[in-house]
Amino acid sequence: MTFTYLTRVYYEDTDCGGVVYHANYLKFMERARSEWLLDMGWDMNLSSELDRLFVVKSVQMDLIKPARLYDDIQVDTKVARNGRSFIDFEQIVSNGAGVIYCKAIVRAVCVNHAFRPCAMPKVLLKEIKHDG
Amino acid sequence: MTFTYLTRVYYEDTDCGGVVYHANYLKFMERARSEWLLDMGWDMNLSSELDRLFVVKSVQMDLIKPARLYDDIQVDTKVARNGRSFIDFEQIVSNGAGVIYCKAIVRAVCVNHAFRPCAMPKVLLKEIKHDG
Amino acid sequence: MTFTYLTRVYYEDTDCGGVVYHANYLKFMERARSEWLLDMGWDMNLSSELDRLFVVKSVQMDLIKPARLYDDIQVDTKVARNGRSFIDFEQIVSNGAGVIYCKAIVRAVCVNHAFRPCAMPKVLLKEIKHDG
Amino acid sequence: MTFTYLTRVYYEDTDCGGVVYHANYLKFMERARSEWLLDMGWDMNLSSELDRLFVVKSVQMDLIKPARLYDDIQVDTKVARNGRSFIDFEQIVSNGAGVIYCKAIVRAVCVNHAFRPCAMPKVLLKEIKHDG
Repeated sequence: MTFTYLTRVYYEDTDCGGVVYHANYLKFMERARSEWLLDMGWDMNLSSELDRLFVVKSVQMDLIKPARLYDDIQVDTKVARNGRSFIDFEQIVSNGAGVIYCKAIVRAVCVNHAFRPCAMPKVLLKEIKHDG
Repeated sequence: MTFTYLTRVYYEDTDCGGVVYHANYLKFMERARSEWLLDMGWDMNLSSELDRLFVVKSVQMDLIKPARLYDDIQVDTKVARNGRSFIDFEQIVSNGAGVIYCKAIVRAVCVNHAFRPCAMPKVLLKEIKHDG
Repeated sequence: MTFTYLTRVYYEDTDCGGVVYHANYLKFMERARSEWLLDMGWDMNLSSELDRLFVVKSVQMDLIKPARLYDDIQVDTKVARNGRSFIDFEQIVSNGAGVIYCKAIVRAVCVNHAFRPCAMPKVLLKEIKHDG
Repeated sequence: MTFTYLTRVYYEDTDCGGVVYHANYLKFMERARSEWLLDMGWDMNLSSELDRLFVVKSVQMDLIKPARLYDDIQVDTKVARNGRSFIDFEQIVSNGAGVIYCKAIVRAVCVNHAFRPCAMPKVLLKEIKHDG
């Protein structure tokens, strides 16, 4: 029920404060949601065929402890809540060993190419129910 | 009382959805806060001398309408609330002509080089009071 | 004959080495080329209508002196050479007061939506000749 | 003798042209060089202790075929040439199955905290000789 994505902090992720630039935690979290979607069977062909993509609608993010260059990054992702057209992801960025860097609730909305909210494909809704 | 920063959407800001990548609104907002701080008399020399820098502690962001390549970006920033060691910025990213792309409340905390919260320099607190 | 674009170094541009992250000079240079194109009368409507966009084909970049947070950035851009479908830009990133951070030759190629090289729109070729 | 680093294209890497933003190939290549250095026994403690870090001095990059969202990325890295204070890396970004996206020669220079070129730590020079 929790999906885990692993990466590492590289130079590109840091800033001259010596730590990860705040906006870049959102990149780690987006990679994790992408891997979750791919794991659910989602891909670009399906996305084009069904004319559906996911966009971020809102973010509530708390930055707890700064991560530094070469730190291990683990993003734990779960579906906290969902409707027919949206998913609220609860995501925790940590070192995988008890140190939490950042927590967020990210709402992703399923839209068509004109960015109008649309019901998610049934196959995905079914997977979420099963997964949740 | 509202500080305005102007820029434009370039290729680096967009993603293959055809619009500005969600995390990049935080970059626009950070540039605006930096310009606001510089306008207040803050700079890197003062930062080093006083051993103080600002880090983002939390973000609440709503993405309202997607901005696209070459769109004008206006970031309006004001101090919504502040304590001795933190500032809650209310920031609106728009095209400067009525179209709002993104709104956020960003809490910045004044810390020392060890990332411990510290009171802001008095000169800055005075400016904020005067400005607010 | 030289087009000047001005910006500043913000946190997003730096890394934990304390200086601008090497790849980000390419962002400054791309913004400058975008402003040059816009100045030439290019825009997204024209781009869609004519089915033409510019992509970077090659980069030769020398990093000379590191730029730091809040440094002024001036990008001087000129057309060093061009063919019917490509432009070699000579770009210098400096502080506008004698300190050169980075120099590059960037080849941009005019392509269609399928990324096949195509002759540039005549209006642009004429402007380049006039400008060069 | 060739070091392989694997990743994937995410939204953050792409631009509204629908493909990977040119500067972001340099990020993939930097991650690969970081992993190579870590594999050689380099880490941040050693870097601090010895007062040595690596900075990019020059880049020659050819963009061959655009990578797209969710494409597999393989970066093959080898030492093409080195001196006491620099390494010329030859790096190829591909899908790992014959499609080459980008090739580059990246010169990294070993510097101290003042960004003055310095001889590399002997342990690293020895590893490079052994590796090359």
